Amino acid sequence: MENLLNTNILELMPYKAGKPIEEIRRNFGLNKIVKLASNENPSEVPENVKKAITNELKNISTYPDSDSFYLKKKIAENNNVGFKNVLVGAGSVEIIRMIVKAFLKPGERVLTSEKTFIMYKIAAIENSGKESFLEAEMDGQFRFDLNKIYGMIDEKVKIIFITNPNNPTGTLLPKKEIENFIKKVPENIIIVLDNAYEEYVEDQEKYFSGIDMINKKKNLIILRTFSKIYGLAGLRIGYALGGENVISYMGRVKAPFNVTRIAQQAAISSLENDEFKISSREINIRNRKKLYNELKKMGVNVIPSETNFLMFFPDSDIKELNDKLLREGVIIRPLRAFGVPDGMRVTVGFEEDNNFFIEKLKKVLGK
Amino acid sequence: MENLLNTNILELMPYKAGKPIEEIRRNFGLNKIVKLASNENPSEVPENVKKAITNELKNISTYPDSDSFYLKKKIAENNNVGFKNVLVGAGSVEIIRMIVKAFLKPGERVLTSEKTFIMYKIAAIENSGKESFLEAEMDGQFRFDLNKIYGMIDEKVKIIFITNPNNPTGTLLPKKEIENFIKKVPENIIIVLDNAYEEYVEDQEKYFSGIDMINKKKNLIILRTFSKIYGLAGLRIGYALGGENVISYMGRVKAPFNVTRIAQQAAISSLENDEFKISSREINIRNRKKLYNELKKMGVNVIPSETNFLMFFPDSDIKELNDKLLREGVIIRPLRAFGVPDGMRVTVGFEEDNNFFIEKLKKVLGK
Repeated sequence: MENLLNTNILELMPYKAGKPIEEIRRNFGLNKIVKLASNENPSEVPENVKKAITNELKNISTYPDSDSFYLKKKIAENNNVGFKNVLVGAGSVEIIRMIVKAFLKPGERVLTSEKTFIMYKIAAIENSGKESFLEAEMDGQFRFDLNKIYGMIDEKVKIIFITNPNNPTGTLLPKKEIENFIKKVPENIIIVLDNAYEEYVEDQEKYFSGIDMINKKKNLIILRTFSKIYGLAGLRIGYALGGENVISYMGRVKAPFNVTRIAQQAAISSLENDEFKISSREINIRNRKKLYNELKKMGVNVIPSETNFLMFFPDSDIKELNDKLLREGVIIRPLRAFGVPDGMRVTVGFEEDNNFFIEKLKKVLGK
Repeated sequence: MENLLNTNILELMPYKAGKPIEEIRRNFGLNKIVKLASNENPSEVPENVKKAITNELKNISTYPDSDSFYLKKKIAENNNVGFKNVLVGAGSVEIIRMIVKAFLKPGERVLTSEKTFIMYKIAAIENSGKESFLEAEMDGQFRFDLNKIYGMIDEKVKIIFITNPNNPTGTLLPKKEIENFIKKVPENIIIVLDNAYEEYVEDQEKYFSGIDMINKKKNLIILRTFSKIYGLAGLRIGYALGGENVISYMGRVKAPFNVTRIAQQAAISSLENDEFKISSREINIRNRKKLYNELKKMGVNVIPSETNFLMFFPDSDIKELNDKLLREGVIIRPLRAFGVPDGMRVTVGFEEDNNFFIEKLKKVLGK
């Protein structure tokens, strides 16, 4: 049976999601479970979003608008770009796969950094096999090393993914560095800036969004998501911004009806609620600092973060530690699959949940 | 810029969805619009489904269960198969693309009939280019011709799609015919039975579901959808049934978190409501007969259907006729893209909407 499979797929390690709470409950029969594993917004979505969804229930027996017209319009206004600069997808994951499918020819390669979001690698391999993926080492501070990446460009490299701030390291690249990189990379290479965590960056002056460049640099694609600060992870919705050509080419491989009716309405209404975004950001910055300090106090090596999560090195066998934490009802993310076998990632949650995590971490580390 | 594109994508004609009501309203400024273009259930979803969705709103800021555990469990019970025989996707469209991605190697081909659902062709071409798709002629009654399809099998054919009842022709194949076909096709060819419209078949004795064969024929995959009789088209959800191997191979190319939280809960609750299914079926059969008779009375050639739609031949220029209908507020489906340039497809709606369609069709045909 296995020889029926497409050869690329044999080489593929599928994405492993953070364990769902329900699964841990089933396996360990626990009452209290705290999940800080998937970088979600700990707040429930606001009332105006819930209301927009409830209003849409009468229409769900009909297909969604395949082109997400009104949502694209709203996103365009919100980002001060044209309607044709926007493409909407079922989360960034779908858009990453669309980029690879649209642009990666046989023999060409995807290039990114080590220790970053795994979907770039999965999308490359499932499309074109193991040989189609390359990763550069990071610099000494767990940041994308754009010089190394630039140095690895050859005639086979076709798509470069840059995650800023980066997942799972939490680190930010200086504005000028990314801007210069984009300027010097040849225009026949697609550059993707994955800005999923941009709203969490504390000093927005240091942050490079790239939006001003999409009409000048025709090879530039910017990824944004509703799964993080907007609190819509459960609905699967993200978007890409880029020049009209690059966006229209990606549209050719878009699945019809890719974004549900509920997701389209929820995303529109969430763009009408700045308060929720602002308060989510403030809660995160405050709790991130506290959590960082708690880990420091324990003597744990934790990396400063510009996101809603922290990467840390517990100086302990990670598999064993993770199993112990699960038994205590704490779900966080071991980072072996991200290329950081001695590291873990914890999402910044509400204070009560963060404290529960710290308490249990102390317990299992014997501190 | 265009030479950056993957060559297969250059050859691709993306799926064109039925026009959304909002678009026609924008373009023509109409008040009353009746859309009978996308084979949706005309009823709103029942209260228990709405309630399941409302209950889930508190959780939408967290990712869905990537594996759709509880929904798969429910589907398995409902179909009397094992948990590992089930895979859930964002509509049949996602599952069709997964099948092609998982199994179609370079140089191999997808085989189906002419005049059927377009996604098989799109999925083949976007994956492996124009050469990777083949279609057999139909028999004289607009049915899949399984003898012709069998005769076209060669060492390149890897996946065969059979749609039963078929979209857009509405025709059903006899049980015995499909069963014999599956038995004689070599096991190194994947056979996909797309049963999207099965619940609408009037005489279920004549209908072949294939479920009893999935553990015997390891190359068999059955597709089912929640977009039709269950009334969840707006939420994107469908599933595949098959042997454990074939299902696990497809799982390797499943996008993480492919089905939203809302869709998972809605689908579970819709499987708990047989009444809605039974009444939707009865309404459809009754209205289909009336609509069929009305078209007959007008002297229009209409094909008997076992689904929730009718294919007919208005003996008139289709593009012109369609434009006139749109201006009158009637959206139905011209079938050029389906390989039936002289045909149209109308979904069976509520009686009032069907009457509006008939009235306007008479008007624009001058009858």
